[in-house]
Amino acid sequence: MMTDAYSRLWMDWKKRDNLPPWTGRIVGEPVSPQGKAALRELQNGLAALGTIPETTGPALQLQEEPGDGENFCLRREGESLILSGPGRGLLYGAFSLLRQLALGEEILFGESAPAWPIRMLDHWDNADGSIERGYSGPSFFFSEGKPVCSARTRDYARLLASVGLNGCCLNNVNVDGEALYLLTGKYDRELREIGETLGEYGVSLWLCVSFAAPMEQGGLPTADPLVGEVRRWWRETCGRLFRAVPGLAGFLVKADSEGRAGPQTYGRSQAEGANMLAGAVRPYGGSILWRCFVYNCTQDWRDQKTDRARAQYDTFAPLDGQFGENVYLQIKNGPVDFQIREPVSPLLVRLERTQRIVEFQLAQEYTGQQRHVCYLAPMMKEVLDFSGPAGRVKDRLSAVCAVSNTGADFNWTGHDLAAANFYAFGRLAWDLDSDPTVLAREWTRLTFGDDPRVTETVTDILLRSREVYERYTVPLGIGWMCYPPTHYGPSPEGYEYDRWGTYHRATHREIGVERGPSGTGYSEQYGPELGRMYGEIGTCPEELLLFFHRLPYDHRMKDGRTLLQRIYDDHFRGCEEAEAMAEAWDALEGLVPEDAFRRVRERFGEQVRSAREWRDVINSWLYRLTLIPDERGRQIWL
Amino acid sequence: MMTDAYSRLWMDWKKRDNLPPWTGRIVGEPVSPQGKAALRELQNGLAALGTIPETTGPALQLQEEPGDGENFCLRREGESLILSGPGRGLLYGAFSLLRQLALGEEILFGESAPAWPIRMLDHWDNADGSIERGYSGPSFFFSEGKPVCSARTRDYARLLASVGLNGCCLNNVNVDGEALYLLTGKYDRELREIGETLGEYGVSLWLCVSFAAPMEQGGLPTADPLVGEVRRWWRETCGRLFRAVPGLAGFLVKADSEGRAGPQTYGRSQAEGANMLAGAVRPYGGSILWRCFVYNCTQDWRDQKTDRARAQYDTFAPLDGQFGENVYLQIKNGPVDFQIREPVSPLLVRLERTQRIVEFQLAQEYTGQQRHVCYLAPMMKEVLDFSGPAGRVKDRLSAVCAVSNTGADFNWTGHDLAAANFYAFGRLAWDLDSDPTVLAREWTRLTFGDDPRVTETVTDILLRSREVYERYTVPLGIGWMCYPPTHYGPSPEGYEYDRWGTYHRATHREIGVERGPSGTGYSEQYGPELGRMYGEIGTCPEELLLFFHRLPYDHRMKDGRTLLQRIYDDHFRGCEEAEAMAEAWDALEGLVPEDAFRRVRERFGEQVRSAREWRDVINSWLYRLTLIPDERGRQIWL
Repeated sequence: MMTDAYSRLWMDWKKRDNLPPWTGRIVGEPVSPQGKAALRELQNGLAALGTIPETTGPALQLQEEPGDGENFCLRREGESLILSGPGRGLLYGAFSLLRQLALGEEILFGESAPAWPIRMLDHWDNADGSIERGYSGPSFFFSEGKPVCSARTRDYARLLASVGLNGCCLNNVNVDGEALYLLTGKYDRELREIGETLGEYGVSLWLCVSFAAPMEQGGLPTADPLVGEVRRWWRETCGRLFRAVPGLAGFLVKADSEGRAGPQTYGRSQAEGANMLAGAVRPYGGSILWRCFVYNCTQDWRDQKTDRARAQYDTFAPLDGQFGENVYLQIKNGPVDFQIREPVSPLLVRLERTQRIVEFQLAQEYTGQQRHVCYLAPMMKEVLDFSGPAGRVKDRLSAVCAVSNTGADFNWTGHDLAAANFYAFGRLAWDLDSDPTVLAREWTRLTFGDDPRVTETVTDILLRSREVYERYTVPLGIGWMCYPPTHYGPSPEGYEYDRWGTYHRATHREIGVERGPSGTGYSEQYGPELGRMYGEIGTCPEELLLFFHRLPYDHRMKDGRTLLQRIYDDHFRGCEEAEAMAEAWDALEGLVPEDAFRRVRERFGEQVRSAREWRDVINSWLYRLTLIPDERGRQIWL
Repeated sequence: MMTDAYSRLWMDWKKRDNLPPWTGRIVGEPVSPQGKAALRELQNGLAALGTIPETTGPALQLQEEPGDGENFCLRREGESLILSGPGRGLLYGAFSLLRQLALGEEILFGESAPAWPIRMLDHWDNADGSIERGYSGPSFFFSEGKPVCSARTRDYARLLASVGLNGCCLNNVNVDGEALYLLTGKYDRELREIGETLGEYGVSLWLCVSFAAPMEQGGLPTADPLVGEVRRWWRETCGRLFRAVPGLAGFLVKADSEGRAGPQTYGRSQAEGANMLAGAVRPYGGSILWRCFVYNCTQDWRDQKTDRARAQYDTFAPLDGQFGENVYLQIKNGPVDFQIREPVSPLLVRLERTQRIVEFQLAQEYTGQQRHVCYLAPMMKEVLDFSGPAGRVKDRLSAVCAVSNTGADFNWTGHDLAAANFYAFGRLAWDLDSDPTVLAREWTRLTFGDDPRVTETVTDILLRSREVYERYTVPLGIGWMCYPPTHYGPSPEGYEYDRWGTYHRATHREIGVERGPSGTGYSEQYGPELGRMYGEIGTCPEELLLFFHRLPYDHRMKDGRTLLQRIYDDHFRGCEEAEAMAEAWDALEGLVPEDAFRRVRERFGEQVRSAREWRDVINSWLYRLTLIPDERGRQIWL
């Protein structure tokens, strides 16, 4: 029975038999805050796991090294265990140990270090306590216009550290309302408190800022990055802020994007904008995360030349090499916007001389809004493993972030199973070679215990979930087709005549935007080899066929079915699979805690309802367009 | 130059030469509040029109008669004029005189009396100051949760009385928030003040109440209209309220409609619900206006048997004769919901033994939201003149109301030209035989003065406006096709898979819902003769063809064009006409007051933009469906 006001998620260590002998005693007194946190986590964690305190015999020795590295080393000396590393490293080592003990695994000895120095979650939390694209209750960072530090802040930092994450951007990239004043000193006290609380667990604080702040807060007549008083305003503002909030790591900036101000307003390049800010934060060791989500969001739907998929590469590729050393270009995994299926963004593949941070979205904006299960680790792995002309994406990135899926709900993520995305993202960010299947199983066991029926069922649900969702929703990479005001539920023509650059232009004969060389030429952004593969219908991966090509409904797929029949089949199948997942969950009654069982069952109820709606709407819409019936005579409604 | 904070609209009496000799002197001292108001209006009005005070000679004699009738009589005695009637009648007579003088018309002698005893505007104002479907700024009746009586309340009452209206329902039919407490005594003082202010101008106060009030405010476990304590609660509540607010005329009730509570919840009929309330207000002379807007708003789009158009008649026709004598069934003009073209509601045509109040909507929810000009008087006249089996609609109604298009904007109605709808509705409600063309001209001259270029241009714009709007928006009575969240702008499939019962089910061959005898049978609700006319394609009026029938795109219209070509043509033409109206307005620069010119020009800018969008979206959508090009080769976008 939980007594907290919120779940401990995967850190709810449960009693274990057969703990190794060294768990009885901890030796060593770390001095850094993170080292002390490591010691405390081990003490509490080992106690929860069931160790019996010993005063002699084998021990766990903590050896703190100087510095703020994040690496740690585990080694054996006789029956004792030595965990060594700088304070932060000790913390990650401590959580690693606890996890392995909780899973009853053989301890993995040796060195461990994270893949990248920045591994963070971005919060789209607003100062009023709402969360943009939040599906897990209100913010736990803001309430009634103010940042708030509470016990939950600390437990959130623990969750981050426990999976190896080390950064957290507090506020929405769309900076509005009171969030505009985070820069100005008004909330220094609160930010300092949050920064210190996060910092104890090695988590850096980041803030989103508005590029127009010199006007909005500074009262200047311009925010032109090349104007002296603008630069001075940023320098002075940063000087004050970074001194007042020691844990601050830098700024995340959404500029020239969806109506936000940016350097374009003043005829300046993205590099001129980003570098100006980078100069202002550099004296304090700060960095700038500069979002590449720049496109024309007031496109005329009649305009067939403009292709939103091209926009980010077209804007940023020519600037390769011009960004300051403390600037990271923040690039969404795909070229459009977190759809259930997109190709990897060409910016991730082709930039050569620019630091990049990939942005995933755990908040399931277009992937079921935490009412549908959609385990995203396989997709993240797919992106990281993707090979471009200059090598694999994961070998060429500098950092990784994801839009958080957390909120103040009891279970943090709305859907209990959505916590697997939080967990897996952190573990992948530390170790790029992590296997999503292993992570799913780990998370399931840490969350629900060791019953193999539970482990197998939940892991199976997680691993199938993305493709199931894809099958009953938007076909073959075409994207969108959701209800514009909410991004939830089907609306096949919802974006067709709107300003967002997201069209399929379906007629009764054909569907899709041609992005090969005969079309918008988007495929060529990948360079010759990949470009050829995507640009030719025969070699384009089928799951992306309608992302890259405009095709007639009778196009033959590799297995001989028509494109239309493939879409019908996917929708019937996806919906059946959703029903099967719901049934599989139902069979776990009594094997998982009652409250979690109930919550997840309720979500599955909605997922099945929504999956049927998607199936019927997409199929009916295509049937009305084509009047070609399903070959297998299943029900399609007129 | 206006100095008020709001326009005087058509009551901005301007100096006139050649006033009749009796305008120099007013004789008679009315004693009723309304009679006194009449005297005051005449004194101020005649002064503004330019009368020179005389102390002898011909006079205007006011002869107040006892009673609260609304009739008045104008007659000549030598060079003097006698206006006689009860206080309320004097008021209407006074405004009638002032209007005729301002228009420079020959005075019309004789008796005048209104067509119906209830002629009112319904406000969808919320207690928080917002207005549901309000396009003219915030409410002037509510602010920050409270009813407010201000100078504007009085001037609003004057506007109502000046066109012969005598009722005003203060709050939104969807009763929420603080509006729930209007019943409970919390706002008696404010309501009394508003009631008195309105009453001085003969305007009765009505309130919307929630059928669930006995639960929401009374703390009872039920609102079942047949339960004793519920009836007692209403009786006591009404007893208190009607005594506290003397001007109160009764309640308007939206029950069992779009999620609102109602008698259905308890298995009771609409008559049982309405009659229970009628009993509670009867001791105070109160009436119940009971809305017939009852339909299934959670329809499954797959369900082709349910036809929303049928719902109101199916619910209420069997109850004909069962409603109390102080109950009026409030019936929207069409069977669905204020679309730009609907047939007349069969409830207006066929009920025999039930008092009815027709509901129009001046608020242009589906007719351009006061950003498009849409003069609705011709449509209202069409409805009133419509002949059913039991005679003309206007001969069989008991009362008339319209959803108000006013708000706290300077010009009251958002679009300056939308005030013509307010004006014409009142004048029509008084005299059913008023001619919309004459009313348009009257309103134009009272508003903009006598320049014939202005009169001709504005009158012409008004009279064409409804059909122009219809042509570039939704074809041939099919309805909807607007963007669901706002009801503004095109979204041809926006309602297709939703729960509102508003479908066209267009395929690449056919479009529309069949409502003839082979379809849902809706046409039969009109009785044999009209039913046959609507039910057969050949006799169905073409402007309603797609309301009643599902047809192939190559259906031949009477003039030989295909249905599809007719729709293309209408859209090109409607858009050109909107452009021409905008140009015609532009030519009035310098002839109408600068501020009104500017405001209207801005609205026309939006109307033209939006008309082009409608044209292109509807045409493109049909072209993509059919791939049949425009016969005249005009631009349709893929």
